[in-house]
Amino acid sequence: MAKPRTRYIIGVDLGGTNIVVGAMPEDGSRELGVRSEPTRPEGGAEPVVDRIVSLISEVISHVEKSDGAERQDFLGVGVGAPGPLDRERGVVVVAPNLGWRDFPLRDAIFDRINLPVTLDNDANCATVGEWWRGAARNARNVVGITIGTGIGGGIVIDGQLYHGSSDVAGEIGHTTIDSTGRYCRCGNYGCLEAYASGPAIALRAREALERDEVSALHKMVKGNLDLLTAATVYEAAHRGDALALEVVRDTAKFLGTGIANLLNTLNPDVVVITGGVTRAGDRLFEPLRAEVKRRAFRPAVAACRIVPGALDGTAGVVGAVATFKQQKLGTV
Amino acid sequence: MAKPRTRYIIGVDLGGTNIVVGAMPEDGSRELGVRSEPTRPEGGAEPVVDRIVSLISEVISHVEKSDGAERQDFLGVGVGAPGPLDRERGVVVVAPNLGWRDFPLRDAIFDRINLPVTLDNDANCATVGEWWRGAARNARNVVGITIGTGIGGGIVIDGQLYHGSSDVAGEIGHTTIDSTGRYCRCGNYGCLEAYASGPAIALRAREALERDEVSALHKMVKGNLDLLTAATVYEAAHRGDALALEVVRDTAKFLGTGIANLLNTLNPDVVVITGGVTRAGDRLFEPLRAEVKRRAFRPAVAACRIVPGALDGTAGVVGAVATFKQQKLGTV
Repeated sequence: MAKPRTRYIIGVDLGGTNIVVGAMPEDGSRELGVRSEPTRPEGGAEPVVDRIVSLISEVISHVEKSDGAERQDFLGVGVGAPGPLDRERGVVVVAPNLGWRDFPLRDAIFDRINLPVTLDNDANCATVGEWWRGAARNARNVVGITIGTGIGGGIVIDGQLYHGSSDVAGEIGHTTIDSTGRYCRCGNYGCLEAYASGPAIALRAREALERDEVSALHKMVKGNLDLLTAATVYEAAHRGDALALEVVRDTAKFLGTGIANLLNTLNPDVVVITGGVTRAGDRLFEPLRAEVKRRAFRPAVAACRIVPGALDGTAGVVGAVATFKQQKLGTV
Repeated sequence: MAKPRTRYIIGVDLGGTNIVVGAMPEDGSRELGVRSEPTRPEGGAEPVVDRIVSLISEVISHVEKSDGAERQDFLGVGVGAPGPLDRERGVVVVAPNLGWRDFPLRDAIFDRINLPVTLDNDANCATVGEWWRGAARNARNVVGITIGTGIGGGIVIDGQLYHGSSDVAGEIGHTTIDSTGRYCRCGNYGCLEAYASGPAIALRAREALERDEVSALHKMVKGNLDLLTAATVYEAAHRGDALALEVVRDTAKFLGTGIANLLNTLNPDVVVITGGVTRAGDRLFEPLRAEVKRRAFRPAVAACRIVPGALDGTAGVVGAVATFKQQKLGTV
């Protein structure tokens, strides 16, 4: 009897900075043909869709070659996109990082590739990815936090992705930690994202530099503070720069405050943090855990591991595959 | 054939200020013999247990008389107590409002009345009560907020009370809305409870009075600011006192900030607020909803009703009955 053919699912992780696309066999055992391109949202939505579609085609070709797959072996495409979104209609409702409003992303992709497409929030996907194959494997209640251009989040409850009543659940970046604090792109004041997203980290470093001349950061950006990014800050902290270390410690405090809120609200067994900020390592995680311990109830702290993601850049792709599987095949 | 005998469940709502006890027939159709006494926690745990047990006995006697019930018709007692608690062991882990630590409340009551006893968080009970028989009836995802001596909360997800990984879920009063803000009894800074609990409302009014002499509140407490309570503030606001109105508006803003966090995190279809603060009515709810609208994502706001509880003081008792039913009989 012939061995049943392996079936593949494609995952798309659309972020404000990069698009990452890859494929997995249905059982999630391997990541295949993962590739990435800058999103360049400033050119409008259609060119972004073009880039997604051509990455999908490349991934399909790759898997056809590497695994001897045929076109009919591809079950479809799971897409993770910045939210809030309307899963039912496949529409991105508001995505400040992309400058999109009410964009029918699912059908825009489907029209071009003619495979079933599902849409879910990018941070939901990253969370499910870490739960399915990463650092939160086998956990029951999980909060995922994705830190990049923005801060997103996802919630797994009793092993099920929780979407809430209108697909907005998990928008952790836009919870207030300081009601009269920093202005956030979403229009409010004091959102976690306004303190701890990549651009917010760079902005806080820049403000500190404008006050205090003594830092390796000046030299690292050749005196042009416009070039400062969160990555530069981690790099300087790694080299022991005092100002950069302070920015990282403050980031840990802000994140710790937001995460303590999640512990007291949701009491998860794992909080998994993904995105570039995790590159700061223990320098970030140690003061972060200390702040959570300070602010959250003892039994909530005792029940919870706070860990960096294990999938290193592909959590969103893996999770997009998992959410496709859950929506179309009913199980992960 | 004889009609099957009605069976009864007793509900106990133990708060920092009052103990409320009542009974319901198993189907939750009526509240019977509800009575209340001050908690007086300053005398220690044992006298509080005495008061609970004697209220239970009174309620049993009342139902025996009013409904012709017999002792064997009582299935047991559901208890709602301030948390965090350990449901498995029936222990109140920490209750700052009672001054308790690791107190085995469930067994202390069981030892005295010899009926099955279940323990759940008081705010969980109030939420389930409003979901079962009150303002959140038929909702799918519900956040309940109980405002009294402290601020508690409960979460219903897909029609099930959500406890989290160690029974701490829903501790909404101890989520931070201002990370460098007011000191909270829990030891942290900027908790919602430090701004909008009954005592916090009284404190903010007092601070305003100490700055500003013109208010009816002075006269209402006969110049003794120690007598000021949240109830006095609502009363003065009701009479149109400008300072009291400002305190109520600020309360609405603080609560709105905390509730917006819950909308962006949990995206519920109902937020139900119970406790004395709801007496301030639209004067509180209108600016509160406006603040939530300002801070939460549009689709989360659109999906959610924010309403006062409908059970007026007995949500905790009704919910304690419901949680007993769920834990012991497997259904509500």
